[in-house]
Amino acid sequence: MIVGEQFLLLPGPTPVPERVVRAMTKPVINHRGPEFKQILGEVNEGVKQIYRTRHNVLIYPASGTGALEAAVVNFISPGDRVLAISIGVFGDRFTSIAAEFGALVEKIDFPWGQAADPEIIKEKLGADVNHEIKAVLITHNETSTGVCNDIKSIRQAAGDHPALFLIDAVSSLAAADLYMDKWNLDVVVSGSQKAFMIPPGLSFMAFNDKALQVYTQSRNHKYYWDVGKGLNFLEKGQTPFTPPVSLYYGLQEALHIMQEEGLENIITRHMNYRHMVREAVKEMGLKLLAADENASPALTSVIAPPELGANRIRQAMKEEFNIVMAGGQQRLDDVIFRIGHLGYVRELDLLSVLAALEIILVKLGFELKTGTGVKKAQEILLQTHKNA
Amino acid sequence: MIVGEQFLLLPGPTPVPERVVRAMTKPVINHRGPEFKQILGEVNEGVKQIYRTRHNVLIYPASGTGALEAAVVNFISPGDRVLAISIGVFGDRFTSIAAEFGALVEKIDFPWGQAADPEIIKEKLGADVNHEIKAVLITHNETSTGVCNDIKSIRQAAGDHPALFLIDAVSSLAAADLYMDKWNLDVVVSGSQKAFMIPPGLSFMAFNDKALQVYTQSRNHKYYWDVGKGLNFLEKGQTPFTPPVSLYYGLQEALHIMQEEGLENIITRHMNYRHMVREAVKEMGLKLLAADENASPALTSVIAPPELGANRIRQAMKEEFNIVMAGGQQRLDDVIFRIGHLGYVRELDLLSVLAALEIILVKLGFELKTGTGVKKAQEILLQTHKNA
Repeated sequence: MIVGEQFLLLPGPTPVPERVVRAMTKPVINHRGPEFKQILGEVNEGVKQIYRTRHNVLIYPASGTGALEAAVVNFISPGDRVLAISIGVFGDRFTSIAAEFGALVEKIDFPWGQAADPEIIKEKLGADVNHEIKAVLITHNETSTGVCNDIKSIRQAAGDHPALFLIDAVSSLAAADLYMDKWNLDVVVSGSQKAFMIPPGLSFMAFNDKALQVYTQSRNHKYYWDVGKGLNFLEKGQTPFTPPVSLYYGLQEALHIMQEEGLENIITRHMNYRHMVREAVKEMGLKLLAADENASPALTSVIAPPELGANRIRQAMKEEFNIVMAGGQQRLDDVIFRIGHLGYVRELDLLSVLAALEIILVKLGFELKTGTGVKKAQEILLQTHKNA
Repeated sequence: MIVGEQFLLLPGPTPVPERVVRAMTKPVINHRGPEFKQILGEVNEGVKQIYRTRHNVLIYPASGTGALEAAVVNFISPGDRVLAISIGVFGDRFTSIAAEFGALVEKIDFPWGQAADPEIIKEKLGADVNHEIKAVLITHNETSTGVCNDIKSIRQAAGDHPALFLIDAVSSLAAADLYMDKWNLDVVVSGSQKAFMIPPGLSFMAFNDKALQVYTQSRNHKYYWDVGKGLNFLEKGQTPFTPPVSLYYGLQEALHIMQEEGLENIITRHMNYRHMVREAVKEMGLKLLAADENASPALTSVIAPPELGANRIRQAMKEEFNIVMAGGQQRLDDVIFRIGHLGYVRELDLLSVLAALEIILVKLGFELKTGTGVKKAQEILLQTHKNA
């Protein structure tokens, strides 16, 4: 029996701060009354700040995938030509949703572990001189591989092609830089159980006026996800359907915490985590799936030594230290393990996890001098603290 | 400033037991691990007991309306003829969802405040000799009016017509009797924030093999609500998309509480509440919207004295006692107020609320001897306690 709770190092759900847990215990109130109206107004404004947008944000009682479906049914119509960019499992999912709802999807797959090449997207859209492509779907942070797409460059590469840009930022928002308005992104989806540090159950969708214009012409059936309904009720300070009030309390408190730390600082912290984990793991003699320039600030995918296997390492970490790390999905199963460093994670947590990982690697017979990676992480942290 | 928290007397969300609140504070765990698998298995079995079914149950991260949409997109196809029975706002909503997703809906409206007449449904289905009607939509407990449809008789009246019966039991399940299997109901939808006593954010859908057969032929687009995905993951002890883990903890504990009380006792308790509230309110000289034989065990709709107006009474109850009651919706606005007696509500709570209501009525100038209704409630409770 290991002392203490399961230590979540997943790229979502992520650990929840005690302040958020306590906020969630407040009594449930009338969701059509003035108190909830105040909360809804406050959290909507707070989420907008995280999106760096002045446009519309709706909060859905749903998983992140629900908000991806919302993006598709509101802004894409059956028969629309859609360009889908996939660099992994979640890119594939966004593609599948669009196809299920009748879009004619042309999909560009980049190799798993790599980022999308803006040049290829530029060529593709450049060749579409009649502007038949109505939407571009792309994942910001691909959680299955730990690769972050360069959304800013991709958006710029599109030039003045009028297609809507729909971004899956479920696991990136508030971990990687994203400027919805400045970068001219039309629809951006995110979720609560990632950098927002609250339990799963809420998802967010922001959309600009260009997207809203497309919505008025959209021909997919919709009711639960209908942004028209959402906006009408938001104007009254309500939601169309009963909101998960407890999670709203949690979101309200999480936004307070985020405002105290400051969005720039939060993003810098995630970048530092990325650097520290990657350099430490390299120093241990392990390989990383993603190249430095595209690596995710939310999680690091480590290629396990083939003679050990990723799942054996994960199992030992769970059994001996109660640390829960994600494995690889589909073709990456047993090939990689993924270290989440997203949301409510401290430098201390990562130091201890890297130390535990070394212990497990050595115990499983991997050639490694205990402390090698941890020392590297310490040196990097020392530098961070000197600069602070 | 009133001492104490807002006292929710809504027909949902309803008060949450402290045990459930505490359970929800447990640390979020990996939703793809063995611990969550155990919880999912347990709560799925527990919800089935409440449904009195041996068939499939799926739990959605969504409001009740989400599960209504799930019922429509999985079991109704565009062009299907559908018979929708409406006795109020939520019957209208179920109808709207079916129409939005392409069903050819024939709607029978019964006057608000009355229940659906099984004879009329019998005639309607009897006339459909070619079995063109593919589904019947009906609300069990109509929350907007406080009327409970006699689902058992309606189902029997349908005889051997092969249409699927889709039941909105969002606010009735575990408050009013419902035997999914014995009554031969095909699809039954419910929600967490009602008699299940947990905060909003989860909804349930049970469906039998006949419905599952229809699903395999269904032609509506679906992804988030797709029961095929749900069942595949359930077999592995998982959910297709990240589940609201905290609400699952709450559900697990709420089901323990419900099992301790016993489903029969829970339903009897709600029937007793209905009787006590109705008789007390009648004794105060107020009129009720629903007749005794169709009155809801979940809430009581009271017709306000026109010279006072329902909203003035609600406002005074809120300002002076911090009691939150629902008003009337649409054409019933300011005509009725609704006293919820659903879920985690005690006899004591209702005694005090009835007493407060009398105080407000007298203060607002209504002709009433203070204590009249409370005395009636006490007499009824005395009888209940003698029989216990």
